Amino acid sequence: MPHTFRQQVRSKEFSGPTAGYCGDFAQANLAILPSAYAEDFMRFCLRNPKACPLLGVGEPGQFDLPMLGRDLDIRTDVPGYNVYRDGVLCEQPADIRDVWRDDLVVFAIGCSFSFEQMLARERIPLRHVDEGVNVPMYRTHVANQAAGRFGGRLVVSMRPMSGAHAIRAVQITSRFPAVHGAPVHIGNPAVLGIEDLSSPDFGDPVSIHEHELPVFWACGVTPQSAIESARLPFAIAHRPGHMLVTDIPNASLAVF
Amino acid sequence: MPHTFRQQVRSKEFSGPTAGYCGDFAQANLAILPSAYAEDFMRFCLRNPKACPLLGVGEPGQFDLPMLGRDLDIRTDVPGYNVYRDGVLCEQPADIRDVWRDDLVVFAIGCSFSFEQMLARERIPLRHVDEGVNVPMYRTHVANQAAGRFGGRLVVSMRPMSGAHAIRAVQITSRFPAVHGAPVHIGNPAVLGIEDLSSPDFGDPVSIHEHELPVFWACGVTPQSAIESARLPFAIAHRPGHMLVTDIPNASLAVF
Repeated sequence: MPHTFRQQVRSKEFSGPTAGYCGDFAQANLAILPSAYAEDFMRFCLRNPKACPLLGVGEPGQFDLPMLGRDLDIRTDVPGYNVYRDGVLCEQPADIRDVWRDDLVVFAIGCSFSFEQMLARERIPLRHVDEGVNVPMYRTHVANQAAGRFGGRLVVSMRPMSGAHAIRAVQITSRFPAVHGAPVHIGNPAVLGIEDLSSPDFGDPVSIHEHELPVFWACGVTPQSAIESARLPFAIAHRPGHMLVTDIPNASLAVF
Repeated sequence: MPHTFRQQVRSKEFSGPTAGYCGDFAQANLAILPSAYAEDFMRFCLRNPKACPLLGVGEPGQFDLPMLGRDLDIRTDVPGYNVYRDGVLCEQPADIRDVWRDDLVVFAIGCSFSFEQMLARERIPLRHVDEGVNVPMYRTHVANQAAGRFGGRLVVSMRPMSGAHAIRAVQITSRFPAVHGAPVHIGNPAVLGIEDLSSPDFGDPVSIHEHELPVFWACGVTPQSAIESARLPFAIAHRPGHMLVTDIPNASLAVF
């Protein structure tokens, strides 16, 4: 199914957000950088594994990534791209064959869609799904471990849960470090430097019911934010929500 | 070391609370019941595994329990006992050879000392330890799964923690279902029917710092409470805090 889905993306039959498609398989955040910055960015990911869990890294110029998917071409198989020049978003092309360069290195970073599927399977309600909006995400005051020009602050996503569901969610997501793993915080948002849960920096606000706790996970927007603040002369990312659908079964990412 | 410790208990050299002794080995709550009630009580434990995780069950009349300790005699090797008649605490003898009967069945139930050792090893502060008091415990409105005349309500212990420590504590204690396992609740005590954290039903109150969450675990007082409310004609338990020290290494109880 992911292979067929990617073929539809490649032929432009499909160009929308990927949430809800090929739910048993991991989707990936994408960062594509010139090789001059690749080593520092790889070091940045390794130092911030909760926000930037690496599912795969290509060689310079490599646009097929067999560890991520059969017959995959990263230049055409993602339903939308963001192209940055000098740190500024310049284009949102449907494929990147025109701007591809032989020095570009592909980074595929785990995505919370995978652990959300595991939570939903255990009947843990996801408020943003029930309310039909994007998960709320917040910039925190928690500094990332810097590497070269990559630094910035941790971005988190938030899902409100009952105490019992929060406990189960810690257990479930702990099994999946490759897709952000366990939460980074439960409870008072002020501890992370978040002032107002009803005003997320990305995504949409969701309602929080009585007795529920906000549960915070490290978010895949963190690396994108680090790339923007690094002001690289050239970089490519996926368009938010328009992820790479891989052949990696979510279940295979469980560490126990 | 547990063997030597039990010998000191047997010879009455030692008769105090066992907290802090033989810290690498599991300590056990004790319930000793006439065999007429043993099957129902075993069923009660199996139906309420978070409160009543069974480390070992003897045969009728069996006072050595080799699965729990070498050369163990349950009638002499615990530093204090509670003897109940018709549901009422009648005696607190130093050994139970005088009241032993051939129809008595020994139940050894996991104890939170084991998981507290695992938490302390990872530098997760335990407020009641830091304040030198017993852990606060509360009767909840959560009904146990009944079996025969055993029923009653869940009793929980509470440890206040930061959000990050609560997450780590869920991970650590999830590995140890034989000693109560993961918490049953995090956050608002009203969800469990607890009105005032500063007035525990057993143990002592502890302070809760700003931004901390109360984290609740099922407690080994639950079975004792079920036995009391069952008003058995005869039953024996350990004296609170005066546990059976077993030969079972805490580390061996990890399920992964």
